[in-house]
Amino acid sequence: MTRVAEVREATAAAGIDALLLTPGPDLRYVTGYDALPLERLTCLVVPARGEAFMVVPRLELPAAEHSPAARLGVEFVPWDETDDAYSLVAGRIGRVATVGLADRMWAMQSLRFRAVMPGSEQVLAGSVLRELRMRKSPAEVAALREAGAAIDAVHAQVPGFLKAGRTEREVGRDIAEAILAAGHASVDFVIVGSGPNGASPHHELSDRVIEAGDPVVVDIGGQMPSGYCSDSTRVYCVGEPPAGFAEYYEVLRRAQDAACAAVRPGASCESVDAAARQMIAEAGFGDHFIHRTGHGIGLETHEEPYIVSGNTEPLEPGFAFSVEPGIYLPGRHGARIEDILICTETAGERLNNRPRDLVIV
Amino acid sequence: MTRVAEVREATAAAGIDALLLTPGPDLRYVTGYDALPLERLTCLVVPARGEAFMVVPRLELPAAEHSPAARLGVEFVPWDETDDAYSLVAGRIGRVATVGLADRMWAMQSLRFRAVMPGSEQVLAGSVLRELRMRKSPAEVAALREAGAAIDAVHAQVPGFLKAGRTEREVGRDIAEAILAAGHASVDFVIVGSGPNGASPHHELSDRVIEAGDPVVVDIGGQMPSGYCSDSTRVYCVGEPPAGFAEYYEVLRRAQDAACAAVRPGASCESVDAAARQMIAEAGFGDHFIHRTGHGIGLETHEEPYIVSGNTEPLEPGFAFSVEPGIYLPGRHGARIEDILICTETAGERLNNRPRDLVIV
Repeated sequence: MTRVAEVREATAAAGIDALLLTPGPDLRYVTGYDALPLERLTCLVVPARGEAFMVVPRLELPAAEHSPAARLGVEFVPWDETDDAYSLVAGRIGRVATVGLADRMWAMQSLRFRAVMPGSEQVLAGSVLRELRMRKSPAEVAALREAGAAIDAVHAQVPGFLKAGRTEREVGRDIAEAILAAGHASVDFVIVGSGPNGASPHHELSDRVIEAGDPVVVDIGGQMPSGYCSDSTRVYCVGEPPAGFAEYYEVLRRAQDAACAAVRPGASCESVDAAARQMIAEAGFGDHFIHRTGHGIGLETHEEPYIVSGNTEPLEPGFAFSVEPGIYLPGRHGARIEDILICTETAGERLNNRPRDLVIV
Repeated sequence: MTRVAEVREATAAAGIDALLLTPGPDLRYVTGYDALPLERLTCLVVPARGEAFMVVPRLELPAAEHSPAARLGVEFVPWDETDDAYSLVAGRIGRVATVGLADRMWAMQSLRFRAVMPGSEQVLAGSVLRELRMRKSPAEVAALREAGAAIDAVHAQVPGFLKAGRTEREVGRDIAEAILAAGHASVDFVIVGSGPNGASPHHELSDRVIEAGDPVVVDIGGQMPSGYCSDSTRVYCVGEPPAGFAEYYEVLRRAQDAACAAVRPGASCESVDAAARQMIAEAGFGDHFIHRTGHGIGLETHEEPYIVSGNTEPLEPGFAFSVEPGIYLPGRHGARIEDILICTETAGERLNNRPRDLVIV
């Protein structure tokens, strides 16, 4: 069964009359088409009954025809610069009770659809697609493994980039170029958190000059030509670490190991979070682990399942997610260790394999 | 007056009770905060009456506090991993008739807001913000000028990357690295359309091997650390151009000049489109110019104003947009020439200044 047919079946089962998928990870998952997210409407329509079709700006028709979507037997419906593409969709769908919108559909699109389909309730297509996207196929696992190897190759070069006297931004530029050179199609994010900046988990780059004795949190990722994403964090120290750092880093390293060891089919998402959290709390750093333990990954860097307290969903083979506990001491420094894991039939398999010991450069 | 105050005033004037701005160009325009677009809700709320505030995941609080948003006197309202951030916003706003959503707010967010604010009509914040964002300030013009110079510096290197026997993808990777090296913070798109691929305006990269005699359309852009975007297209030919190419390229070059010359305050957007289109049509290539002439540019690569038939909006000083007519011969080759222009008090000023003659490499 093709993915379009799978999605149609799941859409009908969910009681949704049609999915409306604009460019983004949902569209790419269903069709393989990595359409540009533009103000001109490209939209795959998957009715619960009837044939799927895709409205495409005439300008994008050659790109669509050269994309994997052209091999799915889905009709392309081109529209011209001065047509109203939203009315075109509404007219073809007819009156329906419920439509499912791509989770990342822009408001400028969802409000237009609402205006031309006033009787239809809008829900999220994610309610249908999450069940499919969360369970990675062998081909998707292979793509994530390739992404993991690519970002590992970048981390292998980071010690060569990190030197006292360079700014985070300078180091970040070298890393960005290395992410592309390692085979990624794009750079998604480059976090170089030196010294006190390492205590802000989502710090990116600044003009701070890296100093001797700085721990540096390097959290990097990109998207491969396949569409699948990489994401891995390691901690480096420029020279000898400051007092107390090595001790809590070791707590973190053991906690990350414990969380990875907790991964197996049937274990809940929150149990993986708890495995790391408990160990960090017992060492007295519980208040300094201020985020969930992980997020799913695939065509998006952050997707379901989330490894967080309250998520009782049991892991299944094919689930892919990060395990990335952290300890953050505001104003001083911080640390985080992150690997992507696949839940196999029996356990968790790490897709990132760079050493997890503190790297002194 | 700060931008927040300007926006509040415009919001009230538009009869909207509050704007809800999630990460993206709208939020960055108003606050300067380049927040990560994540599933966790970050949202600036600008009530028409009362003080603006921003809900921020606690995890992002340090990033927000280090951003320009921290200097605006806007209250930050942090929320924790297991809080409902949407209800938090709804509770603080109270019952209102109309809320304006960031144009790019994700459906996963807009539908949550709808659920917790069932009595409020959702409209686009863009209806308020477009009037502000379209009129670039001197600082914004300077940022666009810097972006233009950066992408010009990349085009200057392209002849060194283009060689018969290389694939579009290989050339594209060199260009992406050069875009970063030229000072961009990110690569937005790299189009290398060789031979027949040049006839598809939004073709990106393929594994096609570039051959002697191929015209190659190179359309590239990135985002500067300032947030402002570059976008410029030039056409190169690997060796002698094929029969007939130089003739229509010259038509295109004159049409692009004519459209740039038509830019002045008070001229309509569509008149600039018409200036290029008429000249191309008169030369017999009207059916081969299959897209509008241009798009606005700023914090987004594509934003208002659109230079398209039907857009009667008069140009004003500070409007920034592309002028990029093209001629496309399906199955054979194509050409497009693109510069970013600013409408000054008297005319159009090009921000891209690489030669527009066909470059033989």
